[in-house]
Amino acid sequence: MTTAHLFIKALKGEEVERPPVWMMRQAGRYLPQYIELRKKYDFFTRVQTPELAAEITIQPVDIVGTDAAILFSDILVIPQAMGLEVQMIESKGPYLPKTIASKSDMDQLIVTEASDQLQYVYDAIRLTKKLLNNRVPLIGFAGAPFTILCYMVEGKGSKTFDKAKQFCFSQPELAHQLLNKITDVTIAYLKKQVLAGADAIQVFDSWSGLLAPGDFKLFAQPYLERIANELSSLIPVILFPKGSWYALPDLSKSSASALGIDWCIEPKLARELTHNSITLQGNFDPAKLLLPIPQLQEAVKQMIDEFGTQKYIANLGHGILPNVPVEHAKAFVDAVKNYKKH
Amino acid sequence: MTTAHLFIKALKGEEVERPPVWMMRQAGRYLPQYIELRKKYDFFTRVQTPELAAEITIQPVDIVGTDAAILFSDILVIPQAMGLEVQMIESKGPYLPKTIASKSDMDQLIVTEASDQLQYVYDAIRLTKKLLNNRVPLIGFAGAPFTILCYMVEGKGSKTFDKAKQFCFSQPELAHQLLNKITDVTIAYLKKQVLAGADAIQVFDSWSGLLAPGDFKLFAQPYLERIANELSSLIPVILFPKGSWYALPDLSKSSASALGIDWCIEPKLARELTHNSITLQGNFDPAKLLLPIPQLQEAVKQMIDEFGTQKYIANLGHGILPNVPVEHAKAFVDAVKNYKKH
Repeated sequence: MTTAHLFIKALKGEEVERPPVWMMRQAGRYLPQYIELRKKYDFFTRVQTPELAAEITIQPVDIVGTDAAILFSDILVIPQAMGLEVQMIESKGPYLPKTIASKSDMDQLIVTEASDQLQYVYDAIRLTKKLLNNRVPLIGFAGAPFTILCYMVEGKGSKTFDKAKQFCFSQPELAHQLLNKITDVTIAYLKKQVLAGADAIQVFDSWSGLLAPGDFKLFAQPYLERIANELSSLIPVILFPKGSWYALPDLSKSSASALGIDWCIEPKLARELTHNSITLQGNFDPAKLLLPIPQLQEAVKQMIDEFGTQKYIANLGHGILPNVPVEHAKAFVDAVKNYKKH
Repeated sequence: MTTAHLFIKALKGEEVERPPVWMMRQAGRYLPQYIELRKKYDFFTRVQTPELAAEITIQPVDIVGTDAAILFSDILVIPQAMGLEVQMIESKGPYLPKTIASKSDMDQLIVTEASDQLQYVYDAIRLTKKLLNNRVPLIGFAGAPFTILCYMVEGKGSKTFDKAKQFCFSQPELAHQLLNKITDVTIAYLKKQVLAGADAIQVFDSWSGLLAPGDFKLFAQPYLERIANELSSLIPVILFPKGSWYALPDLSKSSASALGIDWCIEPKLARELTHNSITLQGNFDPAKLLLPIPQLQEAVKQMIDEFGTQKYIANLGHGILPNVPVEHAKAFVDAVKNYKKH
């Protein structure tokens, strides 16, 4: 790993000749090569077998040409490691048969040894790093504590995660205890990802945007900040609190290197709210990858015009959709690589 | 109907002794009296039978004490009237077997006579007005054109409505033709609601928050503005583009009387973005209705402190959840009615 990699330079705020580019969920379901593996191995076999995870992680680097790889894994390995069963029902999403509703549920969670359960992740990182052979940096990741709490309490995906929010609002002390346990495990987990060779870390707060600004400050922000504080001396950290545009001013003062944003905020306003002091990552509407390629290229150009080429990592505003043709994903990546300001 | 009603005064920006209060989806699934009717009559029977619709509309006024009634109906009566079958699958949501994908699909839609198909709505409004006997004003409503397009193209609910957005992005001319047809029908429909006796109109753009600000300006805003322009000389209009906080500055200059906002924006910022020039409606997090009542009361007080008592209509930021106890809904309404600034 050298700092010559565009992605790391952009994270550090160093000058770059063009913005680096990768795509959330780039290792996955829109790639025919991934779909072949999915036919042979179930979800957690793919996640837990380092050879498979490494192969899937590297696919988009080879096929689409992204400037960074992100480990193929899942945010729900943390609830698993803490002792909760997680079933992944293909094309339906996760299901946790046992959820957290009370202090006694919470007291049964594994904390101290949880990150030791995830040796397969560290092995996958080591193998991926070896196979990548320094072509591009490797991003490790975890779910943010609030988002993990959402799944632990709700037991499955939800549009609104009302049950999880009600848990936080009506039993705030218990919620904070749970969030602290998740944070402890996540920090230990991410530190081991760094030891295994991850070059940067992204923390996904996929559901933080369901919280009012005041509740984000209570139930999401302190835990994101604690993770950033513990990791940022080791490695660049990207925080992605999806939908929480209102948190940009506060998080721009955190120890994170970059903030991810979705497409529901204009780049110019995101720059203002962060006082142009931190690298921003995003924010292409994933639905726009299905535009005819000339219009897709124009939309990418417009996005980079608005963000500027410095302190910027081109990405989607959320995960790539399964029905995106590979040539459109490649067109997105190439449009960033070929960006010229007129 | 006299202008003495708090709700109408607040819409007109007139001075009020306290803010009026109602709750989105107040007529419905959290009320035992509604659940009784649901056991006997299916969804569209309840919607299409004026006696049932009127009874359900008035239930929350009697039981919970809201300052306005909103007609029990559904935004998808518009696609129905335009010739698309809509099935309502209880506790799963709507399903449209035939969707709009092409110009020929669109050309088959009924436009000119569509609003005549909805006589049962006008009858329900007339009956409700009679039964309400001027106790509180009656709100009529419709879905906003972009949200109706979402269902017409996607055929069912969705977290992201990617198919609908892709339709707009990749066939913008066709999308605008469809949006114009929906807008024409909606304006005719709302004018007939006014003739039947509705005292105010709310337009629900439930999915506009999935659009980037630039796309909102293209695919949502012009149609919201056209509806507001056509209706506002007749009746106060409330626009509720859920999630589209970024549109507040523009919409505050529209001919609407009020803007609805969800809980993901602080009242103070919403006031700033609208230059304190328009009535705001919202924005209690529906999940907070399950707080213990003293905390619920405190949260309501804080909300009103932040919005101020003038040019303000207390409401939730989205529909009431089915699992809210009636006494909590009533506590919300009473907390607004008993508001005193300390």
